[in-house]
Amino acid sequence: MRNFADRLVTRIAELNNPTVMGLDPKLEYIPKSIIDKALLMYPDDVEVATAEAIWMFNQALIDATYDIVPAIKPQEAFYEFYGIEALKVLDRTVKYAQEKGMLVIVDCKRNDIGNTAAAYSEGILGSTEIIDGSTVSMIGADCATVNGYLGIDGVKPFTDVCSRDGKGIFVLVRTSNPSAGDLQDLELKDGRKVYEAMASLVNTWGNEVVGEEGFSSVGAVVGATWPEQAVEIRKLMPNNLILVPGYGAQGAGPDAAVASFTKDGRGSIVNASRSLMCAWKKREDLSPDDFARATRDEAIDMRTKLNNALKERKYV
Amino acid sequence: MRNFADRLVTRIAELNNPTVMGLDPKLEYIPKSIIDKALLMYPDDVEVATAEAIWMFNQALIDATYDIVPAIKPQEAFYEFYGIEALKVLDRTVKYAQEKGMLVIVDCKRNDIGNTAAAYSEGILGSTEIIDGSTVSMIGADCATVNGYLGIDGVKPFTDVCSRDGKGIFVLVRTSNPSAGDLQDLELKDGRKVYEAMASLVNTWGNEVVGEEGFSSVGAVVGATWPEQAVEIRKLMPNNLILVPGYGAQGAGPDAAVASFTKDGRGSIVNASRSLMCAWKKREDLSPDDFARATRDEAIDMRTKLNNALKERKYV
Repeated sequence: MRNFADRLVTRIAELNNPTVMGLDPKLEYIPKSIIDKALLMYPDDVEVATAEAIWMFNQALIDATYDIVPAIKPQEAFYEFYGIEALKVLDRTVKYAQEKGMLVIVDCKRNDIGNTAAAYSEGILGSTEIIDGSTVSMIGADCATVNGYLGIDGVKPFTDVCSRDGKGIFVLVRTSNPSAGDLQDLELKDGRKVYEAMASLVNTWGNEVVGEEGFSSVGAVVGATWPEQAVEIRKLMPNNLILVPGYGAQGAGPDAAVASFTKDGRGSIVNASRSLMCAWKKREDLSPDDFARATRDEAIDMRTKLNNALKERKYV
Repeated sequence: MRNFADRLVTRIAELNNPTVMGLDPKLEYIPKSIIDKALLMYPDDVEVATAEAIWMFNQALIDATYDIVPAIKPQEAFYEFYGIEALKVLDRTVKYAQEKGMLVIVDCKRNDIGNTAAAYSEGILGSTEIIDGSTVSMIGADCATVNGYLGIDGVKPFTDVCSRDGKGIFVLVRTSNPSAGDLQDLELKDGRKVYEAMASLVNTWGNEVVGEEGFSSVGAVVGATWPEQAVEIRKLMPNNLILVPGYGAQGAGPDAAVASFTKDGRGSIVNASRSLMCAWKKREDLSPDDFARATRDEAIDMRTKLNNALKERKYV
């Protein structure tokens, strides 16, 4: 498979849209008509009905956006939260989005060492050898998020799969949450912050997976809620992909969301979850049954806002 | 449910054994007779056969040790690696071990923020509300491992479940792997190392979940491979439980493994995975079919070695 960074950067350019749609399927995000339909289909098994509701919701959102949004980011926590049947829907969602031409970034923030990290990377991105020696692709995502606290031992098994199979990872550098600084902002003896040291590590780790477009498939998570820091982080990792959470419902606007893009407006992708998935809740002019239409409208609006912000950069 | 730290410390004292048995079911750890039996049971579905082999192996190891070992630590990566059917076996293993009186620490190193962290903590330790409003326990483990890189936002949802349901977490402080120091050993401006700052954060986070035995259910992972550091870390977190990986196959001996115990020999638990699960591979006097007996013998030997090391402390 072609290098992940090349695939992502190319698809962003084709659609002129640096957006990834988060799919964090909390039941309260799903319109009642979908829930009712799922319960009618599986009246005797609420766990299966729950999973089916998530599936119908995801499928409709993918159908409504695959021609304008380059990637989805399912949040693994919510599939795990709703149990085995929902985890099957994660798998189904990954494969469905890929069939539609979308790239899939599974947000799972995995971290471990040695053969355990290899089990995660092969399970989520690569392939698994089972009992009869046959090989199966369990999740088969294009990319995963990773926590780098354990150092290169925990990252190398992922970068190996990135090199071998054209996959990618985003390592947490500066997260978007209020308490991100508890550890990440601590000042080191050499004057850097902890997150800057992590940025430099990620840049080094990514050197072996640089694609033809000039970006490494080993990227970083840098929250939109800290735009000044995002500008500095881009200097430390000029050729790493950056995944930007925190846009929309978490508070950051388009100017802050594009702070980490390169000078020529590439190399980063902005995530929106709630603002896209729950767009229907703000639309008094539409029925909740038109939730997918509302998501598409919101995605188009977000695309316009990001592209406008890229034309007149506020944080550089 | 009673405070997790109280439950763990009490069970360690009852069995006079501060050991947790890691259950990381790689297929090459499982004797061929078990694999063959599983394939005979499910000749048409190798994924189900793979999961059944893991189940039979886990069950036999639990049966062989529950009266001498207080806890198990299934490594989630390997269940995920072998797919949905293996994840069902994780659930089955958790419940079976609990029925036998063992505490279950799911090693999953989860980390995220806000309602996503809540989804992880409720999914692994707590309960999930599904489509019809009913509540189910998905994994229902007693304890999980957590990565604290995102700060208190990522930990609070777990400590809330710890307080409410008598559950526990172990936050990564100093891991056992060779590259642990890439980030964890960086020196801060104030003279501390990054892992020491993390230790102090964990100590603070744990204050609200201290049990009657004087220990907090918010514990730390501190690798046995760095005994001098473990002694210093115990000073920073005098009342936190400590989970000690790195014993046995990863290279640390009993003296190093007990370095983080309190002066009265409590508060820590030492993990062994490969050395217990694969004990049968070193036993020329036993048939591979007696693998569970080999694990029991090894667990008894480990108990003796740890208790001897606690009598004559080398690292204090």
